[in-house]
This record gives sequence, structure tokens and C-alpha cells, in this order.
Amino acid sequence: MSEFYKEINPAGFGIAIKQKEVLFSKQSDFQKVEIIDSDSELGKILTLDGLMMTTEGDEYYYHEMISHIPMMHHKNPETVLVIGGGDGGTVREVLKHSSVKKVVLCEIDGMVIEVCKKYLPTISCGLSDPRVEILVEDAIEYIKDKKNEFDIILIDSTDPMGPGEGLFTEEFYTNVKNSLKQGGIMAAQSESPVVNKNEIKKMYALLKKVFPVCAAYTSPIPTYPGGYWAWAFCSVDVKPLSYYAEDRASEIIKSCKIYNKDYHNARFALPNYLIELVEG
Amino acid sequence: MSEFYKEINPAGFGIAIKQKEVLFSKQSDFQKVEIIDSDSELGKILTLDGLMMTTEGDEYYYHEMISHIPMMHHKNPETVLVIGGGDGGTVREVLKHSSVKKVVLCEIDGMVIEVCKKYLPTISCGLSDPRVEILVEDAIEYIKDKKNEFDIILIDSTDPMGPGEGLFTEEFYTNVKNSLKQGGIMAAQSESPVVNKNEIKKMYALLKKVFPVCAAYTSPIPTYPGGYWAWAFCSVDVKPLSYYAEDRASEIIKSCKIYNKDYHNARFALPNYLIELVEG
Repeated sequence: MSEFYKEINPAGFGIAIKQKEVLFSKQSDFQKVEIIDSDSELGKILTLDGLMMTTEGDEYYYHEMISHIPMMHHKNPETVLVIGGGDGGTVREVLKHSSVKKVVLCEIDGMVIEVCKKYLPTISCGLSDPRVEILVEDAIEYIKDKKNEFDIILIDSTDPMGPGEGLFTEEFYTNVKNSLKQGGIMAAQSESPVVNKNEIKKMYALLKKVFPVCAAYTSPIPTYPGGYWAWAFCSVDVKPLSYYAEDRASEIIKSCKIYNKDYHNARFALPNYLIELVEG
Repeated sequence: MSEFYKEINPAGFGIAIKQKEVLFSKQSDFQKVEIIDSDSELGKILTLDGLMMTTEGDEYYYHEMISHIPMMHHKNPETVLVIGGGDGGTVREVLKHSSVKKVVLCEIDGMVIEVCKKYLPTISCGLSDPRVEILVEDAIEYIKDKKNEFDIILIDSTDPMGPGEGLFTEEFYTNVKNSLKQGGIMAAQSESPVVNKNEIKKMYALLKKVFPVCAAYTSPIPTYPGGYWAWAFCSVDVKPLSYYAEDRASEIIKSCKIYNKDYHNARFALPNYLIELVEG
């Protein structure tokens, strides 16, 4: 094993992490699943098909952003669907909202869930909560016949190539929209503004065909390509920053490393070049 | 030469960049100065003592933030002092403000200036502007006898170890404060919130002893440690977001890749853990 785990993005640069050992490595029905123990403050790392999905050391940058930004825009989120997200980090954050009665995790790859339960307990801990229903199945099929079922849908997927590809289509987004209740919000990971400019342009063009409200928000993520990440905020009837759930905020903020109300409001202020990509 | 230029931070991870060749490498009186041509979208890279200072591909993330955030808080910035910043990127941005009559660049290492003029012309281009006075000297000595001379002082230094160490002391900050005019603002690079937590805590504790107003602002920088960077905003009499120079904004924003008014306002919203570090 080499001294460093390296992940180089198409722009020709990337991350290098001192590594100790590979704790798990197996091909599932969908992808290569690995857990690497790093010799760094990042701790253990989950990779899928050789791309970092999450690390113990910086996972909160991603999970607090994909969950609390849309959740705080909803007056009473009771039913939440998480698509992908088999590591459990997004579910853990969603469960911090006292209004939540049911979280459905729809993850296509059962091996990801099992491996994260075993090796990444601080991330996967929410998966055993009684409010959580875990479905090991294809979200593209699952969502097809759902109408008015969810207050919040979080698309915590891999990139738009490989197993996650079908989660970046007009048909899929339309089905997601139809499965949202009134006042419902979808948030979806939407790649790196630094190294995935073409993917972002394409994705937001599609989203805007489907959703009357479509905005981007961003935050730094140290281990993701370019150190900077975007999420799409989409809805039929809820505009960004039109509502803030003060009642739930104070308790949740106490338990977060990043998230607070000012930080929340600031997420929708984008760099010029990203405004251009999103507006198309 | 190995295939990758690597820079690993004390937290055990860092950046790896495909490299083509080392275009320049020489020990100056102060540090090792190198220009590396990368095989990536980052283009050419300046390193000092083996640490990346700037790249052609992502320099604007840093230079737009260190300059326009403080400059837009000033009603009429005419005289600006840039300490360090020998690559010229900060000077280039400062010169976009039509109010500016004089920029003093005080850089201790003349080799940095010469090398950047030769190899990084898109960054150093402002250095030949007639409003710019270049002083190759130690800013610690230069600032000692200056009183009420500058509207804006930008500390575009290296890290608090090596040649830049003396730029992180109470005595130096006090001299900076005394050299500011009424309504003056200092902005200083203040390391990575991800991997320099101790340095940030120490630096802001010092700054708060000197300046009545002291705040942090942050922005992503793809190639800096942790992909996330902080700057200190310090003044005797100007609070963050208390004034915005609308008159200069529209022209400047047109020429920026990142900077705009919403992005400006959002910079002062910090993650919880950074609020703790800064408030001490």
C-alpha cells in the first residue's frame, strides 16, 4: 500500500491523505466499497468506486448542509425521504428535528449500509432509530408511484455517472416533485462548483424544467473535489429564505459543528461564476 | 520529478497536483522560491519554502476576498498598504477601485516580485501601474513610524512561522493600527479554519487586544489547506457590514469571478466551531 490515498479530479488536482490500512474492500452488485483507515485527522474514510464519499473527520460539513438547510425551511417536516445516503449521516441530522415522525432511507446498495454500520458508527448511528425505515432498493423505481407522501426529500447520491446516473434525469426529478406534499422541499447534492462546472450547468437546466423554485446553495467541504460543494434547493411552492423554523433551531444548532441561522442565510449567496452556471 | 506535487498539512492530508516541470527554483535571502508548471487547470504555481502561495487557476478566490471585502467598507479609500503580497494579485484587485490614488507594496523578498512578474503575468500585472510604489523591505520596520497614513492595510503574508512570523505580534498590530487613518480598516489573512485552529485562536486573541473592532470572514479557496480560508477584519471605528460602497460596486463586480454584494454580506456568517475559536 502506498503512503498516500490519492484522489485526482478531472481538473488535474485533488486530495492526498496519509493512509494506514484498508479495513474493508469488496465489490458489491453496484460498486467497489472500501473503508480506509487514514493516518490523519480525517479518521476512517468510505470510498465507492475509488471516490471518497465521507470521512469521520469532516462528514459534518456535508451532512449538516444537505439536511438542515431544507428542513429549516419547512414548518412541520414529519415525513422525510433520503435517497442514497447509506452511510447514515444525513439520517442522523434529520432525526434532530423533533417534528420528524418517519424517515425512509432508500439506498440501492445494502453493502454500503452494513459496512458503515460496522466501521463508521459515529456517522451511521441514526440508522437504528425506530423512526427510520431502511429500504434496500432502487429509488428510481421506489419513487414512481408515490404521490404527496413526503415533506422533505434529500438526494444524497453519488456522482452523475455510475450507479447514481439515473438520479439526474428529468423523469426522476418529476417523480420526486410529485411525491412531495404541499410545502415540500427537495435538496440534492449538486457537485463541485470548482471542478464540475459542466455537470452543474446540465443539472440545474434539468431541475428548472421541473421545479418552479430552484436555487443553489454552497458550503466548503474539505475533502470533496475543490473543497467546495453545491446543493440544489427545489420546491413547487417554497422559496429560499421565505421561512425559518425558529422553534426547532436553538436545540439543533447546539448539536451542530457548523450550522447556525446566519450561516444558513449566507448559503444562498453565490460567487458570480456559479450564478452564471445555475442561471444557464 | 514525481508525477505529483504534494502538500500535506499537519492534520495529515492535503493537495496533490499533476506537475509538468519546475520552471524556477532558488533560495532567496529569506526562503526557497519556486515556480512549478502543473499539468492541471491550476496552471503555474508559486511556492515559498515548499508551501503553495498562489496558482494561476484559483488565485482569484483569495485575492478578491482579501481586497474587496475591506475596500467596500470604506467610503473613499485613497491610500492602501499591502504587506507581503509580492505576487501582485492583491494589488491588482485594489487598483480596481477608482478612488485609489496610491498603493504601497511592502514585500521583504524582492525575488518573489521578480519571479512573479516573469512567470505569473496575469497575477502580477498591476505592479507596473503608476499608482503603485514597491518597497522591498521589512514591513515590521517600515510601519513603525507611520501615523495616520493609510485608509486600508492588507496583510497578505505567509504563515505565522518563517519570514512572516513577526507579522503576527501585538507590537506589529499596534503599529498597523496607528498607521491607519480615521475610518481605516486592516484585513489580514488568518489561516485555515480546518487545519490551523490553534493559530486562529492565538491570532484573534492578539488582534482583539489591539483593535476595538475585530471580526473574521471566510471563503473557500480550492488549493489552500482544508479548501477553506479566514481573514481578520480589524478597525478602530468601522464595524463589519456597517457601510457598503455602492458607487464603486457595480464596475468592480463585473470584473470579478466571485465577488458580489450578496457574497460580501455572507462572508461574515461563520460556522459554530469558528465562532468559538474567534471569540476565544
